[in-house]
Amino acid sequence: MSLTISIDTMGGDFGPQVTVPASLACLKNNPTLKLVLVGDEAILTQQLGQNLTAFQDRLSIQHASQTVEMHESPSKALKNKKDSSMRVAINLVHEGRADACVSAGNTGALMATARFVLKMIPGIDRPGIISTLPSIHGHTHVLDLGANVDCTEEHLFQFAVMGNELVKAIENIENPKVGLLNVGEEEVKGNEQVKAAAKLLENSSLNYIGYVEGNSLNAGSVKVDLVVCDGFVGNVALKSIEGAAKMIGTLLKEAFAKNIFTKVAGLIAYPVLKSFKDRIDPRLYNGASFLGLKGLVIKSHGGADSLAFQTAIELAICEVKHDVIRKISEQVEQSLSVRKSA
Amino acid sequence: MSLTISIDTMGGDFGPQVTVPASLACLKNNPTLKLVLVGDEAILTQQLGQNLTAFQDRLSIQHASQTVEMHESPSKALKNKKDSSMRVAINLVHEGRADACVSAGNTGALMATARFVLKMIPGIDRPGIISTLPSIHGHTHVLDLGANVDCTEEHLFQFAVMGNELVKAIENIENPKVGLLNVGEEEVKGNEQVKAAAKLLENSSLNYIGYVEGNSLNAGSVKVDLVVCDGFVGNVALKSIEGAAKMIGTLLKEAFAKNIFTKVAGLIAYPVLKSFKDRIDPRLYNGASFLGLKGLVIKSHGGADSLAFQTAIELAICEVKHDVIRKISEQVEQSLSVRKSA
Repeated sequence: MSLTISIDTMGGDFGPQVTVPASLACLKNNPTLKLVLVGDEAILTQQLGQNLTAFQDRLSIQHASQTVEMHESPSKALKNKKDSSMRVAINLVHEGRADACVSAGNTGALMATARFVLKMIPGIDRPGIISTLPSIHGHTHVLDLGANVDCTEEHLFQFAVMGNELVKAIENIENPKVGLLNVGEEEVKGNEQVKAAAKLLENSSLNYIGYVEGNSLNAGSVKVDLVVCDGFVGNVALKSIEGAAKMIGTLLKEAFAKNIFTKVAGLIAYPVLKSFKDRIDPRLYNGASFLGLKGLVIKSHGGADSLAFQTAIELAICEVKHDVIRKISEQVEQSLSVRKSA
Repeated sequence: MSLTISIDTMGGDFGPQVTVPASLACLKNNPTLKLVLVGDEAILTQQLGQNLTAFQDRLSIQHASQTVEMHESPSKALKNKKDSSMRVAINLVHEGRADACVSAGNTGALMATARFVLKMIPGIDRPGIISTLPSIHGHTHVLDLGANVDCTEEHLFQFAVMGNELVKAIENIENPKVGLLNVGEEEVKGNEQVKAAAKLLENSSLNYIGYVEGNSLNAGSVKVDLVVCDGFVGNVALKSIEGAAKMIGTLLKEAFAKNIFTKVAGLIAYPVLKSFKDRIDPRLYNGASFLGLKGLVIKSHGGADSLAFQTAIELAICEVKHDVIRKISEQVEQSLSVRKSA
């Protein structure tokens, strides 16, 4: 099976410097993969060099004359950047010329453009952003991560339905364990939206395990496959975890850099510390999926390096192979008809 | 200056087993400290043994016949447990027989009882819970941490005013840097309450530095002394950080336990890892203060060990010495009169 991914090469903090090497690495790793690199043709041609010939059957350039800046307002990008690499890459998905699009560009603009071009799956009110975190049990999928700062119980429920299909598909789990993020595990805890969402989830066909707390994202006492929350809480949780990991890394480095003895200890412990670090390398968790759209869009971290951007492309490949959009659309339709007839 | 703290000895997962040794350690470290240990007299007398005589001038037992269970509903505890160690310890503060109370008991019951017995500072709508996290810049104070799941901008503003006074007093900082937790640093980001709270803070006399993101709690690019958020978000952030730290600790241990070579490396690196671990030892950050009440109540983590509970008592001592309640009350009165006349 051949599949095609469009790459917004100009997005992110480093543009083609990162997106091109990552694309080439993915072409090498996936013999049937086809990529359309969208961006400034002159820059891309130069950056690709002889790879253009080496991968001529599977690699093409689609010129786009504009670039969406990282801090540009989504509405301005949507209005004024109709030939941006981001927009053209999404257009390719809409036109059926690509199965998915990957961008490290401005999140707000990417979401607004994707929503405008691809449209929503009928029955879904708002798109959600889902990503993965390492955990002591393997890893945890979390949504929403920032698209929606105020959510009703219905929004949270829709996120759960969509996230559940994604996790089922890409993890090959029959009944993912779904938890609702809250400030305690007892029934009385939480705000009104969360309590009402819990009722909807209890009455659904999902494998809803109840409320989970923030520590469940990385290290809960039981494994949870999917954690659902509103975008405000999800974003704060994700960034709090990033901050904690950064602090721990910084202090660990400082401790080993203290004096000659600690430095020697550091050299001896280096291989172990390295294997530990690789296990939670955030670059291996890069890539967030926009759920609720009629096409597949993967957002990479803006500051991604080549390895991280490669992870995001691999995620896109995985989701295309598992036909995630079709599965979500069918499930949404089914859930809605069940609820309407109820 | 002599000061007196009442200890709810029966609260927490381990009761007197933890609270008594911690109390004795504090008496040793603070030569003018007086403690009233509240709980089952027979148990306490036995647990204290000859220390009762050794510290006879500074240590007394106040019998209480009941114990609030860790999962008891706050309203039931308030109604049915009028002679609980928790209630009696708070009563001592109300009666002026203690300057502060420390408990590792049920948070909801402690808050409800403290609010009922001590009453709120006029002008404050809801009590907030503030605690401290380690950060690469030293540490960060955060509130609210779970008392209030739905907050208006006015509540957030009140938390900022109270937290600011606490940080000024105990950290001896003239103008603490106050940040508002949000999903981005740009003005357009966030939900309605946060945006409205930002307006109130911009127009206040506080040293408001703007929106901060989750990573600022432990490792922001600039130091922030006080981070303000609603209790839902604060609780999730705190527990997410706990989970991240736990996962990292677990994986680090696993990496060093892998085989004989990694074990040897672990032995050599042990002193360094130990000094690193001590730096972020959560037991040294134990103790959350209830703000907005007319008396001082410190909540210890329920699972605290003796060292952790000792930290919570030391926090109470520090806040009493710095006259935190009086300073907060005065500041609240002043802020309110400024805002009324505006």
